[in-house]
Amino acid sequence: MNLQETIANFKNYTDKMYSLQMAVEMFNWDMETGSPKGGISAIAKYMGILSSEAFGMSISDEMNVFITELQKNENKLDDITLAMLRMCKRDFESSKKIPKEEMRKYIELIANSGEIWKKAKMENNYNMYAKTLDEIIKYKIKFIDYRGFKEHPYNTLLDDYEPGMTVEKLDIFFGKLKETIVPLLKRINNSTVKLDDSYMKQHVSKETQEKISHVLMEKIGYDLNRGMLKQSTHPFSTGFGKNDCRITTDYIENDMLASFYSVMHEAGHAIYEQNKMDEIANTILDIGVSTGIHESQSRFFENVIGRSYEFLESIYTKIMGLVGENLKDVTLQKLYESVSLTPIRIYADELTYALHVMVRYEMEKDIISGNYDINDLPKIWNEKMEEYLGIIPENDTMGILQDIHWSQGDFGYFPSYALGNAYSAQLLSYMQKDINVIECIKNDDIVTITKWLTKNIHKYGAIKTPIELIKNISGEELNVDYLIKYLEDKYTKLYNL
Amino acid sequence: MNLQETIANFKNYTDKMYSLQMAVEMFNWDMETGSPKGGISAIAKYMGILSSEAFGMSISDEMNVFITELQKNENKLDDITLAMLRMCKRDFESSKKIPKEEMRKYIELIANSGEIWKKAKMENNYNMYAKTLDEIIKYKIKFIDYRGFKEHPYNTLLDDYEPGMTVEKLDIFFGKLKETIVPLLKRINNSTVKLDDSYMKQHVSKETQEKISHVLMEKIGYDLNRGMLKQSTHPFSTGFGKNDCRITTDYIENDMLASFYSVMHEAGHAIYEQNKMDEIANTILDIGVSTGIHESQSRFFENVIGRSYEFLESIYTKIMGLVGENLKDVTLQKLYESVSLTPIRIYADELTYALHVMVRYEMEKDIISGNYDINDLPKIWNEKMEEYLGIIPENDTMGILQDIHWSQGDFGYFPSYALGNAYSAQLLSYMQKDINVIECIKNDDIVTITKWLTKNIHKYGAIKTPIELIKNISGEELNVDYLIKYLEDKYTKLYNL
Repeated sequence: MNLQETIANFKNYTDKMYSLQMAVEMFNWDMETGSPKGGISAIAKYMGILSSEAFGMSISDEMNVFITELQKNENKLDDITLAMLRMCKRDFESSKKIPKEEMRKYIELIANSGEIWKKAKMENNYNMYAKTLDEIIKYKIKFIDYRGFKEHPYNTLLDDYEPGMTVEKLDIFFGKLKETIVPLLKRINNSTVKLDDSYMKQHVSKETQEKISHVLMEKIGYDLNRGMLKQSTHPFSTGFGKNDCRITTDYIENDMLASFYSVMHEAGHAIYEQNKMDEIANTILDIGVSTGIHESQSRFFENVIGRSYEFLESIYTKIMGLVGENLKDVTLQKLYESVSLTPIRIYADELTYALHVMVRYEMEKDIISGNYDINDLPKIWNEKMEEYLGIIPENDTMGILQDIHWSQGDFGYFPSYALGNAYSAQLLSYMQKDINVIECIKNDDIVTITKWLTKNIHKYGAIKTPIELIKNISGEELNVDYLIKYLEDKYTKLYNL
Repeated sequence: MNLQETIANFKNYTDKMYSLQMAVEMFNWDMETGSPKGGISAIAKYMGILSSEAFGMSISDEMNVFITELQKNENKLDDITLAMLRMCKRDFESSKKIPKEEMRKYIELIANSGEIWKKAKMENNYNMYAKTLDEIIKYKIKFIDYRGFKEHPYNTLLDDYEPGMTVEKLDIFFGKLKETIVPLLKRINNSTVKLDDSYMKQHVSKETQEKISHVLMEKIGYDLNRGMLKQSTHPFSTGFGKNDCRITTDYIENDMLASFYSVMHEAGHAIYEQNKMDEIANTILDIGVSTGIHESQSRFFENVIGRSYEFLESIYTKIMGLVGENLKDVTLQKLYESVSLTPIRIYADELTYALHVMVRYEMEKDIISGNYDINDLPKIWNEKMEEYLGIIPENDTMGILQDIHWSQGDFGYFPSYALGNAYSAQLLSYMQKDINVIECIKNDDIVTITKWLTKNIHKYGAIKTPIELIKNISGEELNVDYLIKYLEDKYTKLYNL
């Protein structure tokens, strides 16, 4: 077989892998947006079989041959093929040691555990979920045993989501945040200025909130011809290639900002996915490069744009026209200042967000090291929440049961959220050298911002690594100082410190 | 490998095939119930790849080995394994001659052609669709060339949907209908009694029609914990195993009976699927045995139950309470007599339904023989409609463009609808020997009817062949005389002939 044939076969092979992954995503989308309850275990079975099939393909002898053959000719490959090779090689080397049958069982466990978590959360009953969570953790630990690790077992999981990320780097990252943001939060709590958003907690119907979602999506350029909004328990984004990138939100009738910022956030993910270059459409590169970079885009839309005074100014009249009487006293300034401490991560403001993540980071590090008692986790959660945020969750539904991630086996994922915040502040800093970001937001010109992001991030999909992307833009690796400065500037001003 | 291991491997293998088929169904469900327009060609690509994969598995060397090994031990196999073997062998032998790559291209064509058909139908523009339809037909003919046929090329397609069905049998079947029902229809048209349902063509909102759907579904025992109703352009039913059987309808605001009978029909399909025995859940046998038997169940619920005076009586008050002023003059008798000639098959009454199918049967027979000019088809359609039904469709949207089937490559499928009518009349005749069907309907006791159907049909899924099922019940093969008698009795009474 000549090189061109090998490349063509390799691409057909990866297209098949991608199609299987898309099928699993589709079953998941269907399930999360309201499939019949009675069929969930069957859907879980199909997802298990198809994921296992995709996984099997990623570690097959056939894949091994492709990798070997293509590596021999690396200097003759174009960028896209090279990126595909890099991705496949990484997956091959990280996964080939996990027995396929164990992986299949694990995937089936995961497919069923979402419902168990949902029920436990609804009934505020951690015990109902503890056994499943423990099984998931034991699989994660066992898989790391198979896969091996460098320095710290948790590194293996971190690297899955953010290539190159380590406990060593994150200890420094969160260490700096702990040194700066935890004291800043204490100063805020002691400040004479008292901000909260309780005046926002008024009834706004689901129908009105849906209209608000559409105002936001149109405003920021989320293309609904290639996307769609639905409702689910936990807002998420997913996609089936760059031309079909979907999001969900959850409407809380006495807290319209919850969905407001969920939509900004998830649409940010979707806009990233929609703006990849056509050359990689529907290939294995037609995804975001890492969860950290993905989160930087969602956070950019949610926070840098969505929580800016100028953005809120630009939509204030329209939104107020929709929400009606109950919120008529909310001025633009009040909307902007609607900051509150919340025990719920997904509703957290920019300042405390990373602290929510820090709680999870520290817990995961211990859990994955095997240093945990499944029954103690709720208590540890609450203790850390009190120490870093000064909040004790009322109950486990508001505490350890709030996130879907662990029920999906996504350990190592949470740090990405904080990385996303840090990347987005770093991007903002460099973006401002090229364009006047605030003026763009003021002038309803989000498209100029999106173009910058497309040129530097979106278009590449998974062609470049996170480190390449951020170095190309800023000449340095991820640096948490930009985020700290951004938060200190914004919040010392807000609270008159 | 011992026999038990071979059986276990065979079942894992077919489970994988089934999961791939379910994934294709899920993409289709998603697409038909409203996926983003921009992503459809990508979804089509995934469907093409996964269908092709499932198809490849059905004709692989591995499958050949399973078939050979299991056949050697046929006398040691239980009924379920035997039925799986029979099904796989049938698929293997019918398909192994089609080149995989051509099948992949065909599946991709099909996945895209639904949208082309939809647009052509919406814009009443047959030409927009003619080229695609012609391509599909050429594939069908070419595939029959590969596969071979007995007596008539169309037989190969008929047998796909209804094992054992042939042009010879259907010529007799439709011949008898032509001899009896076409003249009966002429007598009706000359009768002094003039029935029509124009008084039903009043505005009923989509929301109200949704409520009516739920009244019907509850009434006939369609389990929504294991099912779901959505909207799509063309009503259909689909499923992901016996515990997740879904249906769609389409609401026409000035024709509530359209959706009324679509829901009865599709729920009939779903009830069949939901009542299969647990032993075959989520295996390749967890499907209906043939399209004809499937249609017999949907037609039973739609016609035998749904169009009976007693059923309409039992829900009359509830329905009239929902529809409000616009239909206040519709008495129960008028509701029962709401019969009309329509150019649209899916809205046809029981009497003319088989004649609609006859138009398609005769055309398909010619088309598949290669005796067609793609540009003449609309004209031929209209001529046959006039000859058999005395109706000339106003335009192609109401004529040749009305059905989705050809755009999905489903040639050979239409006769099943007429077979369904005939089977259902035959079943009714034998059911009445065991239970008092009319009393059951009167007493809101649909469950007794469903139990009879479950015992004789539903529970078997694809374990028994259609011929076995109908012979077990009635001691004879399909016989169109029961349908003719049922229609003559009902319609001579209705029209006082």
